[in-house]
Amino acid sequence: MRTLSSYLQGAWQPIAGEPAATLVNPATEQPLAHVSAAAHLREAAAYGRDVGGPALRRLSFRERGALLQALAKRIFEHREALLDLAVESGGNTRGDAKFDIDGATGVLTAYAVLAEQLGDRPWIIEDDPEALVRTSKIRAQHISLPRHGLAIHINAFNFPAWGMIGKLAVALLAGVPVLSKPATSTCLLAHRIAEIITEGDLLPPGAFQLLAGPIGDLLDHVGPQDVIAFTGSAATGAKIRGHAAVLAHNVRVNIEADSLNAALFGPDLEVGSQLFDLAIRDCVIEMTQKTGQKCTATRRIIVPAALLADTRERLSERLAEVAARTGDPSVKGVRMGPLSTAQQLADAREGVARLRQRATIVTGDPERRAFADLPEGTGYFLEPILLEASAEAALDPSAPFHAIEVFGPVATLLPYDGTLAAAAAILRAGQGSLVSTLYSDDRAFTAAAIAELAPHLGRLVINDEKNAAGAFSPGCVFPQANHGGPGRAGCGAELGGAHGLGLYMQKTAIQGGASQLARIIGNRPGTTQSAS
Amino acid sequence: MRTLSSYLQGAWQPIAGEPAATLVNPATEQPLAHVSAAAHLREAAAYGRDVGGPALRRLSFRERGALLQALAKRIFEHREALLDLAVESGGNTRGDAKFDIDGATGVLTAYAVLAEQLGDRPWIIEDDPEALVRTSKIRAQHISLPRHGLAIHINAFNFPAWGMIGKLAVALLAGVPVLSKPATSTCLLAHRIAEIITEGDLLPPGAFQLLAGPIGDLLDHVGPQDVIAFTGSAATGAKIRGHAAVLAHNVRVNIEADSLNAALFGPDLEVGSQLFDLAIRDCVIEMTQKTGQKCTATRRIIVPAALLADTRERLSERLAEVAARTGDPSVKGVRMGPLSTAQQLADAREGVARLRQRATIVTGDPERRAFADLPEGTGYFLEPILLEASAEAALDPSAPFHAIEVFGPVATLLPYDGTLAAAAAILRAGQGSLVSTLYSDDRAFTAAAIAELAPHLGRLVINDEKNAAGAFSPGCVFPQANHGGPGRAGCGAELGGAHGLGLYMQKTAIQGGASQLARIIGNRPGTTQSAS
Repeated sequence: MRTLSSYLQGAWQPIAGEPAATLVNPATEQPLAHVSAAAHLREAAAYGRDVGGPALRRLSFRERGALLQALAKRIFEHREALLDLAVESGGNTRGDAKFDIDGATGVLTAYAVLAEQLGDRPWIIEDDPEALVRTSKIRAQHISLPRHGLAIHINAFNFPAWGMIGKLAVALLAGVPVLSKPATSTCLLAHRIAEIITEGDLLPPGAFQLLAGPIGDLLDHVGPQDVIAFTGSAATGAKIRGHAAVLAHNVRVNIEADSLNAALFGPDLEVGSQLFDLAIRDCVIEMTQKTGQKCTATRRIIVPAALLADTRERLSERLAEVAARTGDPSVKGVRMGPLSTAQQLADAREGVARLRQRATIVTGDPERRAFADLPEGTGYFLEPILLEASAEAALDPSAPFHAIEVFGPVATLLPYDGTLAAAAAILRAGQGSLVSTLYSDDRAFTAAAIAELAPHLGRLVINDEKNAAGAFSPGCVFPQANHGGPGRAGCGAELGGAHGLGLYMQKTAIQGGASQLARIIGNRPGTTQSAS
Repeated sequence: MRTLSSYLQGAWQPIAGEPAATLVNPATEQPLAHVSAAAHLREAAAYGRDVGGPALRRLSFRERGALLQALAKRIFEHREALLDLAVESGGNTRGDAKFDIDGATGVLTAYAVLAEQLGDRPWIIEDDPEALVRTSKIRAQHISLPRHGLAIHINAFNFPAWGMIGKLAVALLAGVPVLSKPATSTCLLAHRIAEIITEGDLLPPGAFQLLAGPIGDLLDHVGPQDVIAFTGSAATGAKIRGHAAVLAHNVRVNIEADSLNAALFGPDLEVGSQLFDLAIRDCVIEMTQKTGQKCTATRRIIVPAALLADTRERLSERLAEVAARTGDPSVKGVRMGPLSTAQQLADAREGVARLRQRATIVTGDPERRAFADLPEGTGYFLEPILLEASAEAALDPSAPFHAIEVFGPVATLLPYDGTLAAAAAILRAGQGSLVSTLYSDDRAFTAAAIAELAPHLGRLVINDEKNAAGAFSPGCVFPQANHGGPGRAGCGAELGGAHGLGLYMQKTAIQGGASQLARIIGNRPGTTQSAS
């Protein structure tokens, strides 16, 4: 069986010692590959900073955008084989696999387009010069430049392609070299994509490194210009933020962690409307796509008490259809695959047990062991589980469904009295989420909800009847929109178009004479000369 | 003697128990007041969040700006008495005291002006809606709203007025209530300003609280929407960032810490030019204003080898003039006062000793004990100390002058060969600074220096001959320009006009139909309708 190694300092590393891990197909439990641990991580970090950094900074934004476009093209050429690998190694249905892999090329393309707007200057101009004192010619203007460090990307197991490439695209366009550490359990796909990148010599030396297997002592070697972007559990996130070297050097850290995303059915929502159908469709997608293993998946469904029975019935019907077609995702017609690992399954079952302390199961059996086309008990399967709490429990901020992210096809129905105050209290109890979604045709309610809910969210999707036909399910992360949320969600911000570049850049005030700034810094694209 | 207490939950707290500290005049060592420790900090934090937050959010940006203007007006009315108090309690000359107190009203006024531009919407519109998919009407647009938490401001001893009020102005305009904890040693001035604020009932209940004395268990009570803004030592900064509750809730933390700010004399700089005179003037101001106790003070003077002798001579002359007039700042004609505390003096002397491991003293005696108008040995005085290193030592990143911030009137001359590469290597060795300054009339050198140096800085001042007459000394922090730097400087960002509001706000993507966004969110001021 093959052993995967790391791509560091411009070369695939030799295999040494015992394998650090064995990867399996989570549907069949068949072993697929071993993973070898890497060494010399201090040197790898320095290589990225000292070789990759200058090489990237010698290119303009436009040229770095062309690199992203070339990466997108090359990954697309391998799309079919990558989809197969995602199905085999990640428990993905073909739809799930497309979501991951096409998502990756989508981010590359979006940032390549953005690069065109950023042009050929070495910096991004953030604002116009502003006088420091009314009568003075001395002004300050803010520009952003690539940090002179390494971007360390520590990704989650659920999106080996999109997670790695989405972070990579933004860092590279910003001009910062990347050392990417995929989650070990699903790193076969990330590793294959790394091979595609390196085979083609698509990037300057040092611009991209892959660390397969354990993270080792990498974080001991961080420096003051480095950036760590982590996606994964809150517990690991806190360890990274609290790491001694990270604190000592004030390393910039971005975290996407647990998130109890909510769907909020507006008080005006009516059964029979297209908007209600959209809400039901979204909830089913968000519970079952990627077997619910999305940081943006809906975990709490906040429903007016009057709509509770209809919602419960419709969701249960639709989830039962998925449950009936849960199994080996390589088999045609299967709609939902397994969780990624045995540990994930154990954690999800444990999480459901904790949710049941304050909610009851409406549909789904967490102990089911027989799934399509597989021997009973094989694979890490969990069928969709819908729970429901009382209106009183829903308002209790200490209830487990406000605190425990069950990372699987699991959500809880939470009734409310139709007031924004109650809905906001329930949503807020999650203590910060990546995304939530409102279904309402009442514009005043929507405006009030934005003001009240958005501070607790990284993204708020507002749906109305008019746009229902064309709406995207809320768990789909687009590169144009912010990804990251306050509090429990990690207090991070990624993507969001040009906003996402900020993570990898230093915004600096340049203070000088008006004429000096105008000549040296220049003007923002699309603005007219403002220095006088 | 008077005992100072805290203003919490809308009231000055009763004095209880033994004083936690005694404040003294640092020139005469005469006791001025006691400080009492506060209790019930969990309740104070909750009061800020639950009473102050909603009250501030009910106001528009414009209305909150009016509060800032009223604060500025009231503080200005008390200006003379505050200046006297700053001289007595902080070791300030009258000029130093103006710098602190007029700086405070300056930030209030600048943010009041900004408020006018932000207008009456509950959110700031950050960009135009962007299509998520080319053919779709669904778009994403970013808005910023006040976080629903408490701003905890932990300030340094050196600017009791500007530190407290500068942070307060930005948080209040953003719509976030403040609990301000001044450094104990100089809190007499902060406490008096807090009295002025509270006497006038200038702010809504809960919008402002003052914690005098020790911080107690305050940080145990932080929540996911809170923001901590700290100015002080790197060691304390790391403790705050690594605090268990801060990590558990992913509290947003901003740190301004140690900073080895540099002045870089360009290779083209000539003795006899106005620009050279400016460079000398700035270095003297930055070494001696506030007795060098400014986070933005110049600590490293990077000079072409050919200019070294002239620079040394001119600086030594000017510093000797200040040394001759160092003493009790309440006495007319005194140009520099003492350090703030006995501990600061001990630390500064210890720091000078460490600098001397790789540099030699050019002027100044760290052990001098006789100062104007005072008995020998009284007060926490240190005369200006200029050191000088060899060109070889200057390039050693492990040399103490690149790592130790001596918080007093102390700087080191570092010669370089006139190349940008060498100057950048020296500057970079400081591992991130708040501000540095370039003196050059060579526009190409300046442009290259911006690209190379700015990523290591929060602010870069560029000076040329033309603007030399009107230039401000670089340690003066204007509210329009970013304040904060990467790495050792804390990786923070404050002020910077509208940029500074971001610390207290949550930027959220709103995703919806184009027509929906246009109607509900609205357009950015100054832009035309962009939704179609």
